[in-house]
Amino acid sequence: MSVESDFGSKLDSVFARYGHLCVGIDPHPYLFDRWGFDDSPRTLREFSKRVLDACVGRVGIIKPQVAFFERWGASGYTALEELIHAARSADVLVIADAKRGDIGSTMQAYAQSWLSPGSPLESDAVTVSPYLGLGALDDTMSIARAHGKGVFVLAATSNPEAAGVQTSVLTEGEDAGLALARTIVSRVHAANESAENTAGGVVIGATVSLDEYGIDPDRLPGLPVLAPGFGFQGAQPSDARHLFGPLTSRLVMTETRSILEAGPDAIVETVTRRAQLVADALA
Amino acid sequence: MSVESDFGSKLDSVFARYGHLCVGIDPHPYLFDRWGFDDSPRTLREFSKRVLDACVGRVGIIKPQVAFFERWGASGYTALEELIHAARSADVLVIADAKRGDIGSTMQAYAQSWLSPGSPLESDAVTVSPYLGLGALDDTMSIARAHGKGVFVLAATSNPEAAGVQTSVLTEGEDAGLALARTIVSRVHAANESAENTAGGVVIGATVSLDEYGIDPDRLPGLPVLAPGFGFQGAQPSDARHLFGPLTSRLVMTETRSILEAGPDAIVETVTRRAQLVADALA
Repeated sequence: MSVESDFGSKLDSVFARYGHLCVGIDPHPYLFDRWGFDDSPRTLREFSKRVLDACVGRVGIIKPQVAFFERWGASGYTALEELIHAARSADVLVIADAKRGDIGSTMQAYAQSWLSPGSPLESDAVTVSPYLGLGALDDTMSIARAHGKGVFVLAATSNPEAAGVQTSVLTEGEDAGLALARTIVSRVHAANESAENTAGGVVIGATVSLDEYGIDPDRLPGLPVLAPGFGFQGAQPSDARHLFGPLTSRLVMTETRSILEAGPDAIVETVTRRAQLVADALA
Repeated sequence: MSVESDFGSKLDSVFARYGHLCVGIDPHPYLFDRWGFDDSPRTLREFSKRVLDACVGRVGIIKPQVAFFERWGASGYTALEELIHAARSADVLVIADAKRGDIGSTMQAYAQSWLSPGSPLESDAVTVSPYLGLGALDDTMSIARAHGKGVFVLAATSNPEAAGVQTSVLTEGEDAGLALARTIVSRVHAANESAENTAGGVVIGATVSLDEYGIDPDRLPGLPVLAPGFGFQGAQPSDARHLFGPLTSRLVMTETRSILEAGPDAIVETVTRRAQLVADALA
């Protein structure tokens, strides 16, 4: 499998060049205030551009949060298209944080939106939600595999309201008795293994205890994990090895507020420092 | 509570005027072919306009599927803005089928996108996904309540891959031992009751057996239910009372392919006939 056609290998080469830090781009109105901007589509473009400029050459991955672009409808999506295109042209990998989830034929349309070469929103990976069943994501995975793209499936998130749903236990089939989050992680890994192509990854919050969900990191070699929650939400890069064990090898460590709150004057210095902290933690 | 500030009352007045049929607008490329169109943003606008024109005065609710607009990025969202605006100007209620689901602060941005007065994508209701926990949807519900908008939470969907996740059983708290879908339905209903305002609804597929999930329609008075799957997917309007019992009073019966496949020449006749079938079934 060539590097071009396998998302796992793409991640590896980004990690080798820039380390594991991913900068979340959440253009929240409260940040515009801090940056001295008004709340407008023009600001959305300017803010995104400045954060990207601070990342280029220092960080290998960005994760734009689609919701904050969607607030402005079509104008917001124009800003998002520009950000994605500028990032990918500068060799920065883009994980679109869209958390899309629907039935199979509709998921095909979402997969086309985010993963098909030439689509206006073409990114390198997208986050998806499994509430309509993992089977509903099969076509998305196939489209991703065909184009060397990635699909991060929500598994165990770090927000306090999530545990009730994500620790729910399946009642039927071979996974009966296992927690939903664990089942998702195992199945995504198994699908990668049987395809001999790493398109599937999972989202696990950096403040989640893997044990609590019965997730055994030793049994998931090579599985990409997108972990939001470093920095502002409390987990530190130095916790990564302890939290994720062998999953650290393809861990996308996402920091958002701890970087964006630096404001326009300190963002370059902050990105540089946080990237170094991540590199030191995984050295 | 005035009609303007309560989504449940808005539904009631639409039902009284036009009946319970909701036309799903899924501009799928295979339909463009059938309509004699190419696959382009221009077609997206033309197709949406023609379907809406066939609905105005005959049907009170449309449900655009956002994924098929997102395929075209910002141009697709321009077409969606136009459709939503034209529908609401013609007194047709719009349920944006977006199935958004994220953590609280991000959900606020999605709620602003779809439910805030004056937003480019302002609709009357939006569909959301509960995988990050029902608590993560609290702010969305509050924003909806404040503006007389609706939020339909995915509960039990009719796609075959979904049952594993949606029949999973909670392990903690007061709902321990109950299926996820049932818990979602009960909690959305309880939130409406305690707010004395009906902003929350649920999505239950028309081919789902309520019994299987432990959902008791007698205990959910006034709960809006969005039911896709009438027509093409097999359920007939005449099944509605049998399937949904007292929940029929606020049942949004959605048909999509059975109407869109009629093509440009037969769509007005088809919409008229299907609306009449729905009216007869609930008479």
